[in-house]
Amino acid sequence: MKVIIIGGVAGGASCAARLRRLDENAEIIMVERGPYVSYANCGLPYHVGGVIPEESELLVATAATFQALFKVDARTRCEAIAISPKQKTVDLKDLATGKVTTESYDKLVLSPGAPSIRPPLPGIDLPGIFSVRTVPDAREIRQWLEKGTPFLAGMNRYSGIQAVRPKIRAVVVGGGFIGLEMTENLVHRGFDVTLLEMGDQILGPLDREMARVVEGYLERYGVNVVLKDGATDFRQSSTGALEVHTQSGAMYPADIVVLGIGVHPDTALAKQAGLEIGELGGIRTDEQMRTSEPDIFAAGDAVEVRDFVTGRWSLVALAGPANRQGRIAADVIAGRNSRFRGTQGTAIIGLFEGTAAWTGASEKTLKRIGDEDYEKIYLYPNSHAGYYPGAKPIAMKVLFRKSDGRLLGAQALGEEGVDKRISALASLIQMAATVYDLEESELCYAPQYGSAKDPVNFSGMIAADVLKGDMPLSHWNEIGEGVILDVREPFELAVENVEGAVNIPLAQLRDRLDELPRNQTIYVFCRSGQRSYYATRVLLQNGFEVKNISGGMLSRTYASFFLQEGPIE
Amino acid sequence: MKVIIIGGVAGGASCAARLRRLDENAEIIMVERGPYVSYANCGLPYHVGGVIPEESELLVATAATFQALFKVDARTRCEAIAISPKQKTVDLKDLATGKVTTESYDKLVLSPGAPSIRPPLPGIDLPGIFSVRTVPDAREIRQWLEKGTPFLAGMNRYSGIQAVRPKIRAVVVGGGFIGLEMTENLVHRGFDVTLLEMGDQILGPLDREMARVVEGYLERYGVNVVLKDGATDFRQSSTGALEVHTQSGAMYPADIVVLGIGVHPDTALAKQAGLEIGELGGIRTDEQMRTSEPDIFAAGDAVEVRDFVTGRWSLVALAGPANRQGRIAADVIAGRNSRFRGTQGTAIIGLFEGTAAWTGASEKTLKRIGDEDYEKIYLYPNSHAGYYPGAKPIAMKVLFRKSDGRLLGAQALGEEGVDKRISALASLIQMAATVYDLEESELCYAPQYGSAKDPVNFSGMIAADVLKGDMPLSHWNEIGEGVILDVREPFELAVENVEGAVNIPLAQLRDRLDELPRNQTIYVFCRSGQRSYYATRVLLQNGFEVKNISGGMLSRTYASFFLQEGPIE
Repeated sequence: MKVIIIGGVAGGASCAARLRRLDENAEIIMVERGPYVSYANCGLPYHVGGVIPEESELLVATAATFQALFKVDARTRCEAIAISPKQKTVDLKDLATGKVTTESYDKLVLSPGAPSIRPPLPGIDLPGIFSVRTVPDAREIRQWLEKGTPFLAGMNRYSGIQAVRPKIRAVVVGGGFIGLEMTENLVHRGFDVTLLEMGDQILGPLDREMARVVEGYLERYGVNVVLKDGATDFRQSSTGALEVHTQSGAMYPADIVVLGIGVHPDTALAKQAGLEIGELGGIRTDEQMRTSEPDIFAAGDAVEVRDFVTGRWSLVALAGPANRQGRIAADVIAGRNSRFRGTQGTAIIGLFEGTAAWTGASEKTLKRIGDEDYEKIYLYPNSHAGYYPGAKPIAMKVLFRKSDGRLLGAQALGEEGVDKRISALASLIQMAATVYDLEESELCYAPQYGSAKDPVNFSGMIAADVLKGDMPLSHWNEIGEGVILDVREPFELAVENVEGAVNIPLAQLRDRLDELPRNQTIYVFCRSGQRSYYATRVLLQNGFEVKNISGGMLSRTYASFFLQEGPIE
Repeated sequence: MKVIIIGGVAGGASCAARLRRLDENAEIIMVERGPYVSYANCGLPYHVGGVIPEESELLVATAATFQALFKVDARTRCEAIAISPKQKTVDLKDLATGKVTTESYDKLVLSPGAPSIRPPLPGIDLPGIFSVRTVPDAREIRQWLEKGTPFLAGMNRYSGIQAVRPKIRAVVVGGGFIGLEMTENLVHRGFDVTLLEMGDQILGPLDREMARVVEGYLERYGVNVVLKDGATDFRQSSTGALEVHTQSGAMYPADIVVLGIGVHPDTALAKQAGLEIGELGGIRTDEQMRTSEPDIFAAGDAVEVRDFVTGRWSLVALAGPANRQGRIAADVIAGRNSRFRGTQGTAIIGLFEGTAAWTGASEKTLKRIGDEDYEKIYLYPNSHAGYYPGAKPIAMKVLFRKSDGRLLGAQALGEEGVDKRISALASLIQMAATVYDLEESELCYAPQYGSAKDPVNFSGMIAADVLKGDMPLSHWNEIGEGVILDVREPFELAVENVEGAVNIPLAQLRDRLDELPRNQTIYVFCRSGQRSYYATRVLLQNGFEVKNISGGMLSRTYASFFLQEGPIE
């Protein structure tokens, strides 16, 4: 059997290595148009920032490794330029010599990836404007930084150099993963960074109010976050600096511009071969990664996948699913019955000392597909027991089905323990858990690591209370006619107050029930939603109509959330 | 309805607060024989060590809080001394005045906990010998440390004081949670600590070879770990120092002795009331936390619970399950149909910079109950992508059912990311996941947090390879007749070698197959088990009989595991 794999990074390289393990005798050719196979593209922003000092560390395996360990004919600087599904041949062009050869195949695997979007704006090709997708991209940026701003050479986050220096400015266009990771790394390299995002929020997979927390967090580190404004053209000023002009008429000067506008599936070859392309513009495959041509498979960022939670098609440019798809294609080619279960969109990003992560469906996705059978809660648990030093708050949003309690999605932000909670919740979503399962989860507890009621348990308890009718819920933007009741202590009101709210501290509530109306909805809140839950129970059982405002004051003041010090009450 | 709750810490306090939320009108009395309710006993060792500086931080809620917020009549220094299930009364003794009153109840909840075992050894009551279970215990130890070794006053792990000082010595008896946490905290306070454990390993829930890693880790921090030796008597020397004499005839001098021998369910009152006691000596309840008397419930460390994985009875002294049981007892008393699903024994302990955690069944538990339908794997993945700085190895053991692949248990040790992986695996065990589910888990990946193939995925892939017959497995202690093949590079052999092993580096294997016998089992290993897996695939497909030694050299040299620097290949 002769198998040709087009693309030698995550999906392609995983497929090649797996296929060799399953079939010692297959002839495997893996072609990659770039100079490297199997490199760590997730590490590129950190190489630019100097966190990963050596380029060689990004090269996970070389073409020579593939030959030596896996007997794979790995060819770099070799581009597949045409496929003939009928003849089962592919034309390969050696980019060094320009020579084209035609290779026959029994099975073909496409893993071409998704190149950066580079809109045809005036001036976009000026020197100093970069994308960040390949090892040579990162090298060019490093060279630019070291040449253009020579005093930065060798500086990185670990250097601790804080000397007085001229102001250096960067503009990052696009608030997705690459844009944000580049923002962090450019700040570490001493730049004043403007982050320009055309949409009304950064990090599109997050719901907007959760993205607000991240935006506030970036601002705390000095990043100038500009929303709802896009670059229109790039110019070079008389001093040689770049100028980024925007839709709103603003102009941002820059010593470097990084484009992180997004990626788009590379389907040129797939289209030429007549393969089916999906509604989102990715290569369409079945669960076994087979395209519309039965002997052609596809894997990685160029492929449309089923969202595991919503059942809809989705484009996900992440290394984990790409690797899995590559393995599954190899399995199926080797005669096994593997299937891709789809993706649930779990993702994570580190930003300075913080972390944002999510899994499953967002509220806006549910709204977009017209799914109204969901409820949401906000909570702000501590990363570990409040009495043990160093606890940090986590801002969490959890979505679940109203009808059966099934966990649909979760988003979390914080400086400790976010990856753990989203990983546990991702595992639970994978297994179709309900919020009742979350109540009963038995995670690791010692005071340095969590709480006897872990944030995962806590979210399950709150959600279960909502579903059982024990805690009717409301949100700040849903408050209707009625009374707003603040059950915090007077000293807390002095710090931040809600206009028009009645204040009865929780401990006095039972004695002051006659101050509250019996024929109106009482919207009750406290700082985080816990004391107001207790108040909700008191009021409900005393015959009042009451709703707890999810997350309390902390849900109202997202932007300042991360500014507070220490653990939450 | 009148409900009396005996015990005001984890299980009792959770029960009281929950019950009030469900029933605004119940009369709730909560009695606690100690001076505090709802205190953080998990924090006591860290208070002794100075990590948690103030005693007040350990007091999560006071009796006054329970009264003010929950309208619970919380009585401290009040002991229940007799129950009459027929009359439905309980005799309560005020420990300050000695006065006994009889209270009637509709429902009674027992949450008496599990006091420290204090064997009647000669000298055990000498000054300077302490248990660590209550706030007053911790206070006494702190006072002893500050009085007996005055130069230590106020010192803690954050002080950084490294002055020359006289040698001060501690003996910790018992290598369980409390013993180990006290060991760490006494080391931080400048003590030379001897840890004396009667069994052949510390941390009983771990399998012995995994406990070995922890023992080696403690030794790296200067702890003198003594196994298979128990204290027989305690004496005071002429200089005033303590002497701990042991079964082996050894004597360890000590300025302080801490007992961490274990705990035993407090069942005195339950027995007096004629309640059924289980085979392990705990109070027996049904899934709804109801004892053999239908109006008496029990929760917390004194209760026997079903192990969720093995289905056997178990005693677990952990705060998470105690809280859950308290809540469930409250639910049932309030007329709800809640059930305790049992415990899966998830636990975690921090030791210096490291973490040990586990969930589900251990191999020794499976052996003890005669369950042979399991397989085990060892792996040593990095905590995050090796190319991103700071990755640390994790030592993992994963147990799964041979017949259907169901995940049974996991144990992990390392300096980063252990809590995350065990929490995810605990969630997966809860949902009855198989190793095939682990292969497909979609956890958070960015290079600072994990790998595109997370350790959880990686363990699933290895286990699936084993179950599908793609990777016949062996272990160092199971090697039989045959050839031992080492596929590492020559420079690695120079560091550590296995006598009698044939060396053929993986890259040369395909060309040197004729050097290997065709009628014997070939046991193949490398450093971590990965290259030997590739070799296993090459050999199997070339008709050899081969087994991969799980975990390779790293499984052979557990004790030195944590001594290595940097990420694993």
